[in-house]
Amino acid sequence: MKFSTSSILDKTARAFAGAFVFFAASSLSLADVTADIIPLPAEIRFSVPEARLPITGDFSVALAGINDIRLRSAITRLYSALSIRTGIVFTQTSIVSSVARDSALIINVHAPAPAIPALGEDETYTLAITPEQAVLRAPTTTGALRGLQTIIQLIRQDAGGFSLPAVTINDRPRFPWRGLMIDVSRHWHDTGDIRRVIDGMELVKLNVLHLHLTDDQGFRIESKTHPELHMLGSDGLYFTQDQIRGIIDYATARAIRVVPEFDMPGHATSWGISHPELLSGSPGTTYTIEQRWGVFDPTMDPSNPALHELLSDFLGEMAALFPDPFMHIGGDENNGRQWNASERIQKFIAENNLKDNHGLHSWFNTRLAEILARNNKTLVGWDEILHSGLPQNAVVHSWRGAKGVAEAAAAGHRVILSHGYYIDLNQPASDHYGVDPLPAGDALAPDRRELVLGGEATMWSEWVSPETIDSRIWPRTAAIAERLWSPRAARDVFDMYRRLAIVSLRLDEAGMMHEKNRSSLLRRLAGDAFAPASPEVLALRVFSDACEPVKQYARGRLQLKSRLNPLGGFVDATVPDSASARDFNNNVSAYLETRKTDPEKAPALADALRGQLAEWHQAAQSVSTRLAERSPRLKDVAKFANGVLYAIEQTENALLVLEKVPSEEMPSADAKATRDQQLAAVDKAVAPNTVAVEFPALKGIKQLITAAAQNTASP
Amino acid sequence: MKFSTSSILDKTARAFAGAFVFFAASSLSLADVTADIIPLPAEIRFSVPEARLPITGDFSVALAGINDIRLRSAITRLYSALSIRTGIVFTQTSIVSSVARDSALIINVHAPAPAIPALGEDETYTLAITPEQAVLRAPTTTGALRGLQTIIQLIRQDAGGFSLPAVTINDRPRFPWRGLMIDVSRHWHDTGDIRRVIDGMELVKLNVLHLHLTDDQGFRIESKTHPELHMLGSDGLYFTQDQIRGIIDYATARAIRVVPEFDMPGHATSWGISHPELLSGSPGTTYTIEQRWGVFDPTMDPSNPALHELLSDFLGEMAALFPDPFMHIGGDENNGRQWNASERIQKFIAENNLKDNHGLHSWFNTRLAEILARNNKTLVGWDEILHSGLPQNAVVHSWRGAKGVAEAAAAGHRVILSHGYYIDLNQPASDHYGVDPLPAGDALAPDRRELVLGGEATMWSEWVSPETIDSRIWPRTAAIAERLWSPRAARDVFDMYRRLAIVSLRLDEAGMMHEKNRSSLLRRLAGDAFAPASPEVLALRVFSDACEPVKQYARGRLQLKSRLNPLGGFVDATVPDSASARDFNNNVSAYLETRKTDPEKAPALADALRGQLAEWHQAAQSVSTRLAERSPRLKDVAKFANGVLYAIEQTENALLVLEKVPSEEMPSADAKATRDQQLAAVDKAVAPNTVAVEFPALKGIKQLITAAAQNTASP
Repeated sequence: MKFSTSSILDKTARAFAGAFVFFAASSLSLADVTADIIPLPAEIRFSVPEARLPITGDFSVALAGINDIRLRSAITRLYSALSIRTGIVFTQTSIVSSVARDSALIINVHAPAPAIPALGEDETYTLAITPEQAVLRAPTTTGALRGLQTIIQLIRQDAGGFSLPAVTINDRPRFPWRGLMIDVSRHWHDTGDIRRVIDGMELVKLNVLHLHLTDDQGFRIESKTHPELHMLGSDGLYFTQDQIRGIIDYATARAIRVVPEFDMPGHATSWGISHPELLSGSPGTTYTIEQRWGVFDPTMDPSNPALHELLSDFLGEMAALFPDPFMHIGGDENNGRQWNASERIQKFIAENNLKDNHGLHSWFNTRLAEILARNNKTLVGWDEILHSGLPQNAVVHSWRGAKGVAEAAAAGHRVILSHGYYIDLNQPASDHYGVDPLPAGDALAPDRRELVLGGEATMWSEWVSPETIDSRIWPRTAAIAERLWSPRAARDVFDMYRRLAIVSLRLDEAGMMHEKNRSSLLRRLAGDAFAPASPEVLALRVFSDACEPVKQYARGRLQLKSRLNPLGGFVDATVPDSASARDFNNNVSAYLETRKTDPEKAPALADALRGQLAEWHQAAQSVSTRLAERSPRLKDVAKFANGVLYAIEQTENALLVLEKVPSEEMPSADAKATRDQQLAAVDKAVAPNTVAVEFPALKGIKQLITAAAQNTASP
Repeated sequence: MKFSTSSILDKTARAFAGAFVFFAASSLSLADVTADIIPLPAEIRFSVPEARLPITGDFSVALAGINDIRLRSAITRLYSALSIRTGIVFTQTSIVSSVARDSALIINVHAPAPAIPALGEDETYTLAITPEQAVLRAPTTTGALRGLQTIIQLIRQDAGGFSLPAVTINDRPRFPWRGLMIDVSRHWHDTGDIRRVIDGMELVKLNVLHLHLTDDQGFRIESKTHPELHMLGSDGLYFTQDQIRGIIDYATARAIRVVPEFDMPGHATSWGISHPELLSGSPGTTYTIEQRWGVFDPTMDPSNPALHELLSDFLGEMAALFPDPFMHIGGDENNGRQWNASERIQKFIAENNLKDNHGLHSWFNTRLAEILARNNKTLVGWDEILHSGLPQNAVVHSWRGAKGVAEAAAAGHRVILSHGYYIDLNQPASDHYGVDPLPAGDALAPDRRELVLGGEATMWSEWVSPETIDSRIWPRTAAIAERLWSPRAARDVFDMYRRLAIVSLRLDEAGMMHEKNRSSLLRRLAGDAFAPASPEVLALRVFSDACEPVKQYARGRLQLKSRLNPLGGFVDATVPDSASARDFNNNVSAYLETRKTDPEKAPALADALRGQLAEWHQAAQSVSTRLAERSPRLKDVAKFANGVLYAIEQTENALLVLEKVPSEEMPSADAKATRDQQLAAVDKAVAPNTVAVEFPALKGIKQLITAAAQNTASP
C-alpha cells in the first residue's frame, strides 16, 4: 500500500532531483560515492564496478597483527551482525588463529588501543576489498573497530546472495568528540536502554556517551559517600555503581568514552530532598522531586561551606568511578531567583567582590574546577560557564551555536557544539545535517579551529520514555554522526536521506526499537478491535507516516508538561522526518517547475501527486471514521484527520485548476483575497491540537493552492 | 488484508462452533464466563450486564489495610499498565495515603506476604467491582498482586472509553507450583531477557521461575568459590551474583520464586573445561564447551572425592545466593557411556555394592541431598532421580508424564509435571491446555493427590535466541498458566484460543517481544528491496501466518543442530499456533458437516474456504516470485511456497467437485487409488524442507480431497 505509491514518487523525485537537492552543488566532489553507509568515509574508491567479495558460510577472519580481547569480541559481534543480516550458517564464528591466505577478512592491527578510550586517539583505518579478500588495517584496535562497522554497513544483497563491494577506503574522523547525551533524569532509562544506545552509537561511529545523571527530576546515580542523595532524590530509579561499571565496560569494548554530567548549581532540586540546607532557599524550605518540565528555582548555595565539602566527597567518588578524564558539571539555566531572594547570598557576593550572580557563578565554577583538578579531571560545562576565571583547559559545551563556539575558542577554550543537535526538538534530519561545528567561512582565527573538538546530539528526555526514545534518537542521529565524522564536503541532503533509510534498517537489526515499538504503539492506539495487520492499522500507519510531532517546544504548550503525561500517544508514533511528506513537497516543487520548463511531462507528475493525496485521503478517512468510532484513544486524532481531509480536498481542487489552465500570471486582487482565505483555511484545518502533531505536506499544499490562485487569475 | 478475511472466517467458525469445540461438553459449568482473561478465576459472576466502572483521569487507589512496599510498587506498575493501555493522563500515579470513600480502587490487605515468596503461600483474593468502586481484598500482599493482574486484564474498551466490568471474583490457584523454566545454557539470555520473562509471568499468575543454569553448552553462573567454573565454562556469558540478586529482587517484588538448577551428573561438559578430573573420561581427557545439541557423554565421576568437595563448596555458595528452599539438581539423561568405559567407576560400583550405573546415580543423588540438607535446601530433580534411597521430601520433576507422576506420588514424593508442557517443541496451545497434572479419573490414591504440586512450562533453548524466545514462550504459556491456576472444568479450547489472542495483546503491552520481533524478522527476510509495510512484506506475513514450525524434534533432523545455526530464519518468524490454519481446518469440518445436515448453508461456507485459499494463494505466489527473486534468504522458502501453491490448487479443484456433486457415497476402487495419489502428492508438496516449517491447513486440505474423491465416485 504505502510502498507501491512511494516507490513511484521516489522515481519521480529522482528524475527531478536537480530541482530540490539544496546542497547538490557542494557535493560534486563526492558524486562517485554510491556506498549505502553512514557516516561516509573520508575517501572511498570503487574498483571494477560489480566486483564483489561474496559472503558465504566459510567466511573466515584472521588476525595478521596483534590479537587483543577487544578485537576478538568485536569479531564475535561481526559474526553476529552477519548472521542477523544474512541468515548464513557459518562454519565458525571466531577468528582463525593464524593468518590464512584464504581467509575472507584479514585484520592487521599494529598496537592495542588505550585501555580507556581517549579523546583524540587514533581512529583511522584502511579497508581494501577485492573479489578474493578484504584487508582491514589500523594503527590501533580502535581504528579496526570503526572499520568493522563500515564492513557491516557495506554488505549488500542481490538475487545471488550477500557480498561486499570491491572498494578501497581510507578513513579517519573529522572531529575527535562525537557524542550523544542521554538525559536519564526526566524519564528514567535503565542499563538495557543504555546498552542499546551504545550499540547504535557503535554502528555510526559515535564515540562519546554523555550521561546527564542529575537534574530537578531525579538524582540517578548511587553515591556511597552520601547515599541519601540517590535514596531520597530518585524514586528508586538510579544506576548502581556496579551498573555504571558495567556500562563503562560495555562502552569501552566499543571504544566509546563515557562522560558523566552532574548539573549544578541550577537544576538542583533532587539534591535538595536530602540536603535542603545546601540549596539557596530561605531556611526551612523543603523540596520534593520535580515532576514537571521547565526551569525551576532550586539552586545550590555556594556561600555554604558544607556544599563544598559534600561536592568534594561526591565528585571525588564519581571521579574514581568514571575513568574518563572529563567531567561535565552542567552550569546551565541558573535563573538566579533563589540567589536574588537570599540576603545571605547577596551578602556573600558583596563581601567577596563578586559583583553579581554571574560573578558568584564564576566563583563557584572555579571552586568546582579545583575539586576536579585535584581528582585529575577536566571540567566541561555549558556556555554559561564561560568567564575570565575559568581554567584554560576547561571545555565549553555550546547550546548557543556559532556565537558560543566563537567566544569560547577566542578565549582559548576547547569547545563542543550541541546547538542544532537537540534531537528532542523533532526537527528533520536535514536541519541537523546542515549544522557544522566548523562551517566553511567561519569567523575563527585559523589557530583556533583545532579547539573545536566536535559536537553532541542531546536527547533531553522530557518527552521520551524507554518505549519511544529510540524513535527520537534514530535514525536522525546518524545524520549528526556523519556531520561529525565525514568531510565537510559531504552535504548532499537527498543522498543523506537515501542512506538514512538504509541505515535505519541496519539500526533495527542492531536491536534499536524505533520501528518495532512504533508498530506496537499503532496497534495499541487502534485498540483491541483491530488486528495488528488489519487494513485499519495499516491506514493508521500511513496517516502517522504523513504526520510529524510538533517542533521545538510546542508540545509543552499543547500537552501537560509533567511526568504524569504517559506518552505513548499518536504523536509518539509519528517520526520527526516524514518521508512521504518530504517526497510530496519535493514533487510539488518539481511539478510546478516542470509546468514551466517541460509542460508535456507535467501531467505524469500531477498524477503522482494525486496518487499520494488519494492514499492520504483514504487513510485519514479510515482514522476519522472506522478507527475513531471504536477506539477512544483516537478521538482527538480524528479531529486532526478531518482537518487533513479538508486540506487534501482543497489541494485536489487546486491540482484540477492547475491542469485545466496551463498559463500563469499574477492573480487579480480578488483572486489574491480568495487565495489568502484558502491558505488561512487550510492552515487552520491542520493546526496542531492536543494531539501535538503537524501535517508537513502543508508546505507543498500551500504552494499548489498559491499556484492555482495565480492560474485562475488568467482567463 | 489478513483481518477482513479472517473476521469472516471467525464469524463462520463461531456459527458452527458446536462442530469442533472438542471440550464443549465439559465447559458447560463455565458457560456464563465471558471475561477476556487468562487464567480464568476460580469463581466469577457478572452483575448487571453492561454495568461498568469507568477509568478516568482521576482514577485513584487507596489502601484500607496494610501498606507495604511490595504493594506500593505493584500500584506503580498498575498505573503504568493503565497508562500504556489507555493513554489517560492520571492526576496521580501513586496511592492516596488514607482510605478515601471516592477512591476508584480500594485495596484491603490483611498481612504482608512472606519476605521470600514461599511454596503454598496464600494467593487468594476477592474482587468486587461496581459502577462506583472496585474493592480488592486479600489475606496477604501476594493475593493482592494476583488480583491487580486480573484488574489489568479486565479493562475493556468501547467507543466511550475504558472501563472495568461490574463483577465479583473469588479467586485462588488450583496448584501452588506454577513454573516456567528458562534454559540459559544452550542460548544465552541476559538479565533484560529474564526480567521480561518475569513481567510476562506476572501477568498470567505464574509463580516459579526455574533457571537452568548449567549444561554441556555453558556454565552460566558466577562462582566465587570456584571462579574457574564460569570463567572457562561460559564464553563470557553468565550471570554475576549481583545480577542474580537483582533478578531475585525483581521476581520477589512480584511474588515469584526463583529456583536454580545445576544439572548433574550428566549434561556436565561445561564443568569439565576447568575440572576435567571431575568427569568420568579416561585420565587426560580434555573438554571444550559443547556447541551442538544432543545428549553427550561427559558425566561427573561420583567416585572422585574431589567432586564432593567442590560440589559442597559450590552448592553451599549457591544455597546462600538463592533464598528459595528448593534447589534443582537435574539428574536427567545420564547416558552412562563414560561410566561404562571407566574401570575405576565400575570398580567403585562393585566395591560399594551399588549394582549398576543406576545404583551409582542413586548413591550420588543421596550425597547431593545430604549437601543440600546441610544448606537447608530440598532437592528437586527429573524423573531419573526416583529411587529407594531418595529422601522423602525430595521433589520429582516429571518429563515422563502421568506414569512418572503416579510413580513419584506412590513413593510418597511431591511431584511437578513438565511432560506436555515442553514449549520448545512447537505444539499448539490446545495440546498443552489438554494436559492436566491431576486429570479427572487419575489413578492416584486420594491421599496422594496433594503431592502433585503443579507443573512447569520448559523453555529449552536449542532453537531460541533472545530475539525469538518470546515467540516460543508467548502466548502459549498463558494456556499452561491457566491449566495450573484455573479449575479443572475450564476446558473450552475455542474460548481459550479466543482469550489467548486477547492476552497476547496484553503481553505485547507488558513488553513481550513476540509480535514486535516477528515484524522485524519478516522485514529482514524480505530484504532491503521491500519497505516494512510493503505489500510484499504483508504477503510474507500472511504466508508465515499460515505456516508453523515443525514439531517435536524434527528441526534437528532438517537443520544444523548447533549454536552455529544463527536462527532468525523463516521458521523463527512462524508461530506454533497458526490461527488462520486452525480456522480453516475448523471451517472444513463445519463445511463437510453442513453439506450433510443443512445443504443450503454449505455454499456460503465453501465461499469462505475459497476466500482463505485465495488469500494464501496470492501470498504464496508473492513469496515464490517477487520476494524470492530479490531476497536470497527466501530461496528455500520459495520452494516450500510452490508446494503450498500446488496443494491449494488441488484443494480448489476438490471444492469445485464438492459443489458440483452434492451426493456422497463410497468411492470406487479407481477413485480410491486416484484419491490416494492426490493425498500423497499434496503430502509431498508441502513436506518440510530445510526451512523446517509445515503447512497445518494440510489437515483440512486432505479432508476436502478425500471427500471430493467420495463424491466423484457417484455418477
